[in-house]
Amino acid sequence: MTAFDDLMSFQRETEALAQIAGRLGWDQETMMPRGSADQRGEEMGAIEGVLHARRTDPRIGDWLAAARAPDVAGARALDLIARSFDRTARVPAKLAAEIARVTSLSQGVWAEARAKNDVAHFLPTLERVVALIREKGQALAQGDDAYDALLEDYEPGTTGAALAAMFDAMRPRLVALRDAVLGAAHQPRPITGSYARDGQLRLAREMADAFGYDWNRGRLDLAVHPFSSGSGNDVRITTRVNVADPFNCVYSTIHEVGHACYELAIDQAYLLTPLGAGASMGVHESQSRLFENQLGRSRAFTGWMRGRMTDVFGDMGMDADGFYASVNRVQPGFIRTESDEVQYNLHIMLRFDLERQLIAGDLAPKDLEAAWNARFLKDFGVAVDKPSHGILQDVHWSVGLIGYFPTYSLGNLYAGCLHQALRRAVPDLDSHLARGNARPATAWLADNLQRHGGLYRPAEVVARAAGGAPTEAPLLDYLEAKFRAIYKL
Amino acid sequence: MTAFDDLMSFQRETEALAQIAGRLGWDQETMMPRGSADQRGEEMGAIEGVLHARRTDPRIGDWLAAARAPDVAGARALDLIARSFDRTARVPAKLAAEIARVTSLSQGVWAEARAKNDVAHFLPTLERVVALIREKGQALAQGDDAYDALLEDYEPGTTGAALAAMFDAMRPRLVALRDAVLGAAHQPRPITGSYARDGQLRLAREMADAFGYDWNRGRLDLAVHPFSSGSGNDVRITTRVNVADPFNCVYSTIHEVGHACYELAIDQAYLLTPLGAGASMGVHESQSRLFENQLGRSRAFTGWMRGRMTDVFGDMGMDADGFYASVNRVQPGFIRTESDEVQYNLHIMLRFDLERQLIAGDLAPKDLEAAWNARFLKDFGVAVDKPSHGILQDVHWSVGLIGYFPTYSLGNLYAGCLHQALRRAVPDLDSHLARGNARPATAWLADNLQRHGGLYRPAEVVARAAGGAPTEAPLLDYLEAKFRAIYKL
Repeated sequence: MTAFDDLMSFQRETEALAQIAGRLGWDQETMMPRGSADQRGEEMGAIEGVLHARRTDPRIGDWLAAARAPDVAGARALDLIARSFDRTARVPAKLAAEIARVTSLSQGVWAEARAKNDVAHFLPTLERVVALIREKGQALAQGDDAYDALLEDYEPGTTGAALAAMFDAMRPRLVALRDAVLGAAHQPRPITGSYARDGQLRLAREMADAFGYDWNRGRLDLAVHPFSSGSGNDVRITTRVNVADPFNCVYSTIHEVGHACYELAIDQAYLLTPLGAGASMGVHESQSRLFENQLGRSRAFTGWMRGRMTDVFGDMGMDADGFYASVNRVQPGFIRTESDEVQYNLHIMLRFDLERQLIAGDLAPKDLEAAWNARFLKDFGVAVDKPSHGILQDVHWSVGLIGYFPTYSLGNLYAGCLHQALRRAVPDLDSHLARGNARPATAWLADNLQRHGGLYRPAEVVARAAGGAPTEAPLLDYLEAKFRAIYKL
Repeated sequence: MTAFDDLMSFQRETEALAQIAGRLGWDQETMMPRGSADQRGEEMGAIEGVLHARRTDPRIGDWLAAARAPDVAGARALDLIARSFDRTARVPAKLAAEIARVTSLSQGVWAEARAKNDVAHFLPTLERVVALIREKGQALAQGDDAYDALLEDYEPGTTGAALAAMFDAMRPRLVALRDAVLGAAHQPRPITGSYARDGQLRLAREMADAFGYDWNRGRLDLAVHPFSSGSGNDVRITTRVNVADPFNCVYSTIHEVGHACYELAIDQAYLLTPLGAGASMGVHESQSRLFENQLGRSRAFTGWMRGRMTDVFGDMGMDADGFYASVNRVQPGFIRTESDEVQYNLHIMLRFDLERQLIAGDLAPKDLEAAWNARFLKDFGVAVDKPSHGILQDVHWSVGLIGYFPTYSLGNLYAGCLHQALRRAVPDLDSHLARGNARPATAWLADNLQRHGGLYRPAEVVARAAGGAPTEAPLLDYLEAKFRAIYKL
């Protein structure tokens, strides 16, 4: 065995153990009996300890120094391992352990605070988390920008400045579109009525079929917050049911199918290697958002979906155009996860600016609520009525995910570019979507982007598939055309 | 930290990782998509590798040498760790790895051979497995008896000679009872008809309730072969449905509930320690068999069960005595797992004698089929018609489980003793069982045996609960009284 082979063999076992930890997470959200929570915490701690020891094993440094990659994929694998090893080494073990300890408890505190709308209950925890993540960012940055260093965990290669420029370019057109749409004389009707759980789950499975989800290597279960889980050949999805809102179930499902199809399409040669997962959070989100929005909320696909929903639930009192408009309805709202395509990125901009200030030290956690509320009023024209509609709505900051939010918008931007290229490559796509068949799109994405896994850097893999460096223009063009038509502007 | 604390802390993480490996096994049999099997094999290999490395970590030897136990439970934990460490050290790493490799593949070969009724297809695998397990037994025995050494993995403290004496004492009364019952003029009617899956699963959950299974720390799912899984506060059970035989589902469930209640009743102070699981396979089986047979197949409990089955499925055309007799029907049959209480141990005796000869080198695997068939004809008076009804019916030998079978009979023997003591301690138990409430029995077993976990050696924990050293007499007395009454002898 050469140093390269030794390293890859060691890494492969680490990846297999990481898959196990992920499956435990899935079990926890779907199957685990409630009374097992404390024991599960200890089990998760044990396997995370094993993973941490492996990821910081000093032999990795020796192997990296001696390894010669046999090919391009091997060279990329070495790059990714070296990057991860280097980053792990920069964070003092004591700090890493303290972050793990604090964030394992902080989610519970956040959930309590949200339920009670009690920011004061959450503030000491938030202060501790922000202080620890700032310290981590500074340790990673080694004199450079701490927020940029944190971004590397989620979207390697981007920077706070690049993201700020992206948001600056997006904002005016999104605000103008939002204002036009909300002020339009023609307003879509919302869906009303009650939609039985079994019917929603049947439709969810049909939606997964429509996009070509591979049931032989996945499964669908219920969870409080939908997610997809796993890499390689075991990629599971979850959904949820709200009897008043069947769109929540079907679009959550399509979104998670987008994530899952990405993982399932990665070249089997990369299985359990550093290349065997999606390129970044942003690229991942581009797949799920493209499935959910550009395809799932298209006029063609919703035409078919309306027929299926009518078959399952009976007449919904809307023609195909009305149904399409209802699915894409834009309305004021506090909650990011419930936002429409037009306003979604405005929610992200607010979080991006605030978290960047937190890490820069320009905003103290104690002032965050006031900053959020002032900014929300300015951006959305509505005063936040309670913390669960404002600063307490998202789990991310409570568990130390700072630098994660902007990848959602980057995913939207990537999705815009990829959708433009997809439509050029598959000009008759709408005729398939209108028959409930999104698989030509899934196949194009698999061939042109997904199969590469982590072989290329995020912006590069998107550029290769989209035929040029990603910009915000295709997304904004798409949004303006779509929503001006729906709102008859 | 003292050496004792260091060792216990290390051991606790190992136990937590072992729980994770067990949960993966549960997932594999209940939830895993079929196309994930190869990847799962690699994941299981990775965590088994971690567990093996921890269990053979040389620091354990150092800690054991320096550790001083603070109390009785600590002393027992040190004994159990030392025993396991010593046994692991006796088996050469190369042999252990080869056994793991061969037995990971051999189950598939066995399944193919059984499906095709092709002993020749299985024979090379069987020869390899038997050779490896013989070698392991000899390595463990270090000059003593190899079969005795293998037994220690399943029933510490027993020997082949002791088991042979037990079977010699059991055989004449069992054979006489079997012959009398099969020749009786009065024969119970078998159950007929078709019983819908949903109704069976509803009843299965009711049976679990009747015995006090804690749903807050467990769950029930379907599996091809029912099993229970996990220790501590996450102990899950599985069952199966055969529409022609609802007894299969309800009694499989009650059996697994017996195993699960044992694990769930162990003192929380022993959680994730060497004392935090059942004392042995035999003691475990005593709990499941006592739940299933002495309680679940009692006249009192079946009287209640008949009412519930009638409510769910409609009239079954049997009165309470006829139903009780049908549940306990004795009939000739090839298959151990389908055997009644009277003949079950005769099936075990056959396997015990043959596997002991295999390990002693007195029987070659190539001669095993002929030996099995000759012995079956002699013991049961019927010629085996095909290998899947004979040598190929059980998975155990294919995966190297040699020394495991006799623990089933030991479990029956222990169950007989414990049942006798339970009836003395809870004289009105039948009045509870007749109302579908077996929880007074569950509580007595929890208090008198289960809570101790691994604190005492197997025969000792049974003796403490039963009020004396276990013997075969209570089991045989119970069987004779029960079946002579049912068959009006």
